[in-house]
Amino acid sequence: MMRTHYCGDLNKTHIGETVTVCGWAHRRRDHGGVIFIDLRDREGIAQIVIDPDTKETFATAESIRNEFVLKVICKVRSRPEGTVNLNIPTGEVELLASAIEILNPSLTPPFMLDDDSISEMIRLEYRFMDLRRPMMQNNLRLRYRVAKVLRDFLDENGFMEIETPMLTRSTPEGARDYLVPSRIHAGEFFALPQSPQLFKQLLMVSGFDRYFQITKCFRDEDLRADRQPEFTQVDIETSFMNEEDIMAMVEKMIREMYKKVASIDLPTRFQRMTYLEAMYKYGSDKPDMRVTLEITELTDVMKDVDFKVFSSAATMKGGRVVALRVPNGSAITRSEIDAYTEFVKIYGAKGLAYIKINDVNELNETGLQSPIVKNIHVNALKAIIEKTGAANGDIIFFGADKEKVVNEALGALRLKVGHEKNHVDGRLWAPLWVVDFPMFEHDEETDRWVAIHHPFTAPKEGHEDLLVTDPGKCLSKAYDMVINGWEVGGGSIRIHEEKVQSKVFDALKISKEEAKEKFGFLLDALQYGAPPHGGLAFGLDRLVTLLAGAESIRDVIAFPKTQRAQCLLTKAPNAVDEKQLRELHIRLRTPQPTT
Amino acid sequence: MMRTHYCGDLNKTHIGETVTVCGWAHRRRDHGGVIFIDLRDREGIAQIVIDPDTKETFATAESIRNEFVLKVICKVRSRPEGTVNLNIPTGEVELLASAIEILNPSLTPPFMLDDDSISEMIRLEYRFMDLRRPMMQNNLRLRYRVAKVLRDFLDENGFMEIETPMLTRSTPEGARDYLVPSRIHAGEFFALPQSPQLFKQLLMVSGFDRYFQITKCFRDEDLRADRQPEFTQVDIETSFMNEEDIMAMVEKMIREMYKKVASIDLPTRFQRMTYLEAMYKYGSDKPDMRVTLEITELTDVMKDVDFKVFSSAATMKGGRVVALRVPNGSAITRSEIDAYTEFVKIYGAKGLAYIKINDVNELNETGLQSPIVKNIHVNALKAIIEKTGAANGDIIFFGADKEKVVNEALGALRLKVGHEKNHVDGRLWAPLWVVDFPMFEHDEETDRWVAIHHPFTAPKEGHEDLLVTDPGKCLSKAYDMVINGWEVGGGSIRIHEEKVQSKVFDALKISKEEAKEKFGFLLDALQYGAPPHGGLAFGLDRLVTLLAGAESIRDVIAFPKTQRAQCLLTKAPNAVDEKQLRELHIRLRTPQPTT
Repeated sequence: MMRTHYCGDLNKTHIGETVTVCGWAHRRRDHGGVIFIDLRDREGIAQIVIDPDTKETFATAESIRNEFVLKVICKVRSRPEGTVNLNIPTGEVELLASAIEILNPSLTPPFMLDDDSISEMIRLEYRFMDLRRPMMQNNLRLRYRVAKVLRDFLDENGFMEIETPMLTRSTPEGARDYLVPSRIHAGEFFALPQSPQLFKQLLMVSGFDRYFQITKCFRDEDLRADRQPEFTQVDIETSFMNEEDIMAMVEKMIREMYKKVASIDLPTRFQRMTYLEAMYKYGSDKPDMRVTLEITELTDVMKDVDFKVFSSAATMKGGRVVALRVPNGSAITRSEIDAYTEFVKIYGAKGLAYIKINDVNELNETGLQSPIVKNIHVNALKAIIEKTGAANGDIIFFGADKEKVVNEALGALRLKVGHEKNHVDGRLWAPLWVVDFPMFEHDEETDRWVAIHHPFTAPKEGHEDLLVTDPGKCLSKAYDMVINGWEVGGGSIRIHEEKVQSKVFDALKISKEEAKEKFGFLLDALQYGAPPHGGLAFGLDRLVTLLAGAESIRDVIAFPKTQRAQCLLTKAPNAVDEKQLRELHIRLRTPQPTT
Repeated sequence: MMRTHYCGDLNKTHIGETVTVCGWAHRRRDHGGVIFIDLRDREGIAQIVIDPDTKETFATAESIRNEFVLKVICKVRSRPEGTVNLNIPTGEVELLASAIEILNPSLTPPFMLDDDSISEMIRLEYRFMDLRRPMMQNNLRLRYRVAKVLRDFLDENGFMEIETPMLTRSTPEGARDYLVPSRIHAGEFFALPQSPQLFKQLLMVSGFDRYFQITKCFRDEDLRADRQPEFTQVDIETSFMNEEDIMAMVEKMIREMYKKVASIDLPTRFQRMTYLEAMYKYGSDKPDMRVTLEITELTDVMKDVDFKVFSSAATMKGGRVVALRVPNGSAITRSEIDAYTEFVKIYGAKGLAYIKINDVNELNETGLQSPIVKNIHVNALKAIIEKTGAANGDIIFFGADKEKVVNEALGALRLKVGHEKNHVDGRLWAPLWVVDFPMFEHDEETDRWVAIHHPFTAPKEGHEDLLVTDPGKCLSKAYDMVINGWEVGGGSIRIHEEKVQSKVFDALKISKEEAKEKFGFLLDALQYGAPPHGGLAFGLDRLVTLLAGAESIRDVIAFPKTQRAQCLLTKAPNAVDEKQLRELHIRLRTPQPTT
């Protein structure tokens, strides 16, 4: 071993020892004829002192620049009085060099490691430098600890990690597949898995009883801030457990993980909420429960008011009118309201009506300061005040549109105003289970029911007949874990009976032939002794981003893609040789000049 | 939880307890008016007894067929005298059922789980049934334990698992890449990684110091028996360690793994052998050291014999003549020799000359029984006897051809004869390091040097100049771990200096432009403070196959591909929608009828 110690591990207990350390010259200072080098390795920084008496060593030290790779033999000693630095673990000692070897020099780095203003483009292009920064070192170490602690928990609970294929079958629904042309089978393609869903269900049919896998999944979607073409899932499936058993077990897993990697105590029982309540009160199926603001339903109240924006939303099919009361919000300025109005437009809202409450007892334009008050009759005004519980000094914002627009716009506004105006309950961590999801949502465009989770989700006890009679009312045995407004995990009890699976395909208007073509092996498997089973999957990238307090999931991934799905470091994707395409039996639609 | 115990965990200590078990009806027997069901779960089999007195339960039990999924409430009791079965852990108890619930019936299984004669095609098509078989359950459990023990060892030794991308850049050399067309970047492609090689080197440049990853790699090659399009690598890389440090550490890891998962004691220091010795004495760079037979070099001896097959091989460029002495082999029959002759032809040999030794002191056709003896002069015959150490009753086989053909043919014959004729040393496990590999081998076709490992392998100390002056003589810092003739792992110290890397590219006739285009980011990284580093990768599939004593790596993979790279279960690869191809900017060369 070239080194005897990591730099960051040295402290008073090593005083007097001769040690060998290896690392990067983080900074060099010349001070009073002496050279100081902060030597950095993954465990921290130690101060090397090079005395001018050691001529050769000193000459070497003089040639050292930032990021040179060094091996230093040195003696650990106390720092002189007045130079002790208690901010770093090694701050009580310094290392007097007796020999320095430059293992590799470095060009001048493209940026300073402690410069936080570097654009993400540059950081991704020089990722091998960016990853030297303490933030990235800490994030990836945290990511590893999270995965390790989850693996250990699952191992202790009898789960086995089993690898499922990366080259699998394309089943075009849900997100777009990444395809891989087959060389041996002309005209055919593999798909990269969107999740191991079908394989993990087959493993249950095979009797493995408790499966997990930490694995890559792929979705060729238009990328949003927190999406990557490839992402990592902590995938879990068990047999002979119901939803309560599963939720209790993974809740314990997440609690232990938070405790072990970050010394955070999550509540001993996570809050539960139905999907319906979440949508009604928070406009979202993943509400951030730290925010204390709530949405109030006003659809019935607004059916007959003169203000057409409200009354037409309240009376149209699938319309909704709601209020968001912000206590003490009447201090919110005109320009802030304008900014909030622009903000809700992102979600499709056409505007943002509001009322500032001057006096709850004066139901007119004096007591209720707003352009819309004159067009709302007094009974409706009374109902607004009563239902929202508004008090003098509050502001009430309104949403009125199709349900989806209202929920997204007011749900987002709730978070924005809540965090900006400090309507939060002070908790750092607010975990939550959302349950009782509908099985299906109606797709207007195709006039079809589509699965909210996936078509293998089991209906809630007693809801099986609704699959046929009223699919929209049918609830599922699905559950999502939400932390601070992020959906970190989700799953369900799966259908284990072929006859129920067929009913779901019927409700989704998937024909017998289509089902057989796409999922024939699963339908087969359900007929050969499939046990009751269920599970869930956590998004590892999100779990770690949340724990790290990172701004983007790209900051917890070693080599991420940009939002344009490119790797700036390796310049992937790239053009390939014509010969490769020929072997794969494909050609480009618009041939490019060959490289 | 539906169950209180696993079937396989029940024993005498549970007698008198009421338990609930869940599992599959492995077998039903009706005997003396009583029904017996062997209930199977992943931990084993327990015998359920259904008494005719329990009318309802008995009626249910009568309808149960093989592979039905059951939940049974029952009381554990001793088996009656004479029915105890000490072959299974649960064999001293039986479970008297008080209630049976059929959780799911099953169609008649496509094959009996204990029928070992089922074709692999059927097994793969019904993989969810095949995986219920104890062999497959055990193999996948073993695979999980191996991975877990390796992960724990690496964790304890300061290694961090870091995920590298699956969607990366195509660099067409070595094996063929699997390509993934980009939707966003028309005409461009990602490649699935053949290994995380470049990324792990970048992680060393980033200062992570000790990295590992258990991850999928992909090679689109024509499949041999033990190749899969996707395979799993235990990938390891460290900084500031030399080859001795690395070999010692991973040797310890493999030793601990064998001990922990299989209670096998591997030797405390693995044997070492140079590449040259391995090729000369065993005709292979991965010799099975359990076989005691050795190859004897005779090229010099045969230059001037009349037997043209020998003399021309001995005098041509790149030719080789060798002997394989088999002690007491003269009992090998003519028809066996004919079979061996056919066998070596697989490897390109044109025939198989031999001499049976009747009397070592009689160097003529009486003492040496063979059609070729008359064409070999007496000095050469003498040399054959002396160099091979042949004794009366032995047989000597010969190989004479191009070196590659001789090595492959006689290397394979050595194993075949050694195992068939019991020339083995009795060890169950013979681990070995092969070291001092050449950097390059010469490709006749293109008249170029090609890298034996990969172009990032560092030359041996003092061999740097040979990169320029005599590439064929240049040895590398590469090492392979071989167990029982299987290459289970391989790696090297990498080049950390840009100037050495450039020399290697020069030797490989890779131009500066080409190198920059393909590996620019690595060359950059080497200039910004790359530490000395190295590592290796183990093939998890092979490690487990060897430990499991399985016939094929397909038996240690849950959902493998066939040798035609197909998944018989999901029918992947498959044709895809024209719409998908359009979105990916590609079309088929020979359009298929759309599905």
